[in-house]
Amino acid sequence: MERDRLRVVLVAPRNPLNIGAVARAMSNFGFSRLRLVNPYEVAYQEARSAVGASQLLASAEEFATVAAAVEDCTLVVGTTAAQNRNPQQPLRRLEYGARLIRRRLASEPVALLFGSEKFGLSNEDLAHCHWLMRIPSRPEHGSMNLGQAVAVCLYELIRDPRTARIAPEKPKAATAQVQEALTRILLDVLEESGYVHHPVEASTQRKIRLLVRRQNLSAHDAEIWLGIFRQILWRLQQGRNPKP
Amino acid sequence: MERDRLRVVLVAPRNPLNIGAVARAMSNFGFSRLRLVNPYEVAYQEARSAVGASQLLASAEEFATVAAAVEDCTLVVGTTAAQNRNPQQPLRRLEYGARLIRRRLASEPVALLFGSEKFGLSNEDLAHCHWLMRIPSRPEHGSMNLGQAVAVCLYELIRDPRTARIAPEKPKAATAQVQEALTRILLDVLEESGYVHHPVEASTQRKIRLLVRRQNLSAHDAEIWLGIFRQILWRLQQGRNPKP
Repeated sequence: MERDRLRVVLVAPRNPLNIGAVARAMSNFGFSRLRLVNPYEVAYQEARSAVGASQLLASAEEFATVAAAVEDCTLVVGTTAAQNRNPQQPLRRLEYGARLIRRRLASEPVALLFGSEKFGLSNEDLAHCHWLMRIPSRPEHGSMNLGQAVAVCLYELIRDPRTARIAPEKPKAATAQVQEALTRILLDVLEESGYVHHPVEASTQRKIRLLVRRQNLSAHDAEIWLGIFRQILWRLQQGRNPKP
Repeated sequence: MERDRLRVVLVAPRNPLNIGAVARAMSNFGFSRLRLVNPYEVAYQEARSAVGASQLLASAEEFATVAAAVEDCTLVVGTTAAQNRNPQQPLRRLEYGARLIRRRLASEPVALLFGSEKFGLSNEDLAHCHWLMRIPSRPEHGSMNLGQAVAVCLYELIRDPRTARIAPEKPKAATAQVQEALTRILLDVLEESGYVHHPVEASTQRKIRLLVRRQNLSAHDAEIWLGIFRQILWRLQQGRNPKP
């Protein structure tokens, strides 16, 4: 499976809550290979022993260097909050970078690197990367929380652009017959309640008919409204001819 | 500004770290209007008094009910991890739902609701929504961390699909002249080092020429390689004719 080819590599993470949050986002989006480079040992142990810690976290791999953590990958991508470009290393926006990563994942392992909460990836870490990727956050506040940054990157990798273009199935619309039945009963209610004068004028009929058509009623909702107005009509007629 | 028309509404949040994480993601992506419905008071105060708590959090608004928190909006969207559809309320994937939200934000205020960490939005909360939206997480582990869920939704709202299609500017490629200069000096180095026999055969020349062309060198990198091979050639020639 393609998602198994991605290695999420956390370099020197310091906060157990963040390590746990990264593992959770990976599980949410179906990724499984977590690697930690030189993690703060207390944080790592705490994250692993936390209530509800996942299988994913238990099977995370630990490495002493970035070089060792990315050894089996043919593409290594570093994430950064920096906006300025380095001519030696292309900096790509997430929307575009994720496309390139997905394409490579179709056949080969890819490493996606995230730096420590405080300092991000060092220049030494970045030199292991073929290119860099940035989440399009505001220049004035670019630095994201580690767990949130991972979640956003993984989401972009799994999002399906086709679903953004195709409207989901709509509920079955009400037939003209049902819409007209609703129009008739609504007219009876309006007359019975005194909202319109008896007899109902043709222009009023037309206005009410169009009002009903504008609601774009589903078959399901039209039946509900029919029931509601039948009951109202019955009650109005009862009120007019009270039983002894 | 369109982003100011979005109200991020947290219903009954319980964890101060999550409230802070939501505020941070909002700031990262340029949203400013945070509303809390019936927050756990201790958590809210703790989040507001945390080191580095933002202006955004300080200006968050508090409401007693969902109805009051969404009063000024013309579209109210609830987020849910549920996969099954309710015929009375369309459930849209984030990719599609975000398009509808962006369109509405062009002119009118929209509320985006997130439930509590433990229970999500209640059925009563959901009844205030025109439709529901879900992040495309795995059915087996759909429930996301609150801060991460907000970050992913806001990212989808601000992501620019055009940047996914257009490759960013490439560095200036090396001219054929520079590539040929590099080829000549490389051939000299290969001969001087004994990698090829003197005189260099035509077939070897052709192989090396193609090797250089396959590197897709940028103008910047071609100059670096030229400098490297010039130095190597000089040193090799020094070695051959050592000074007395």
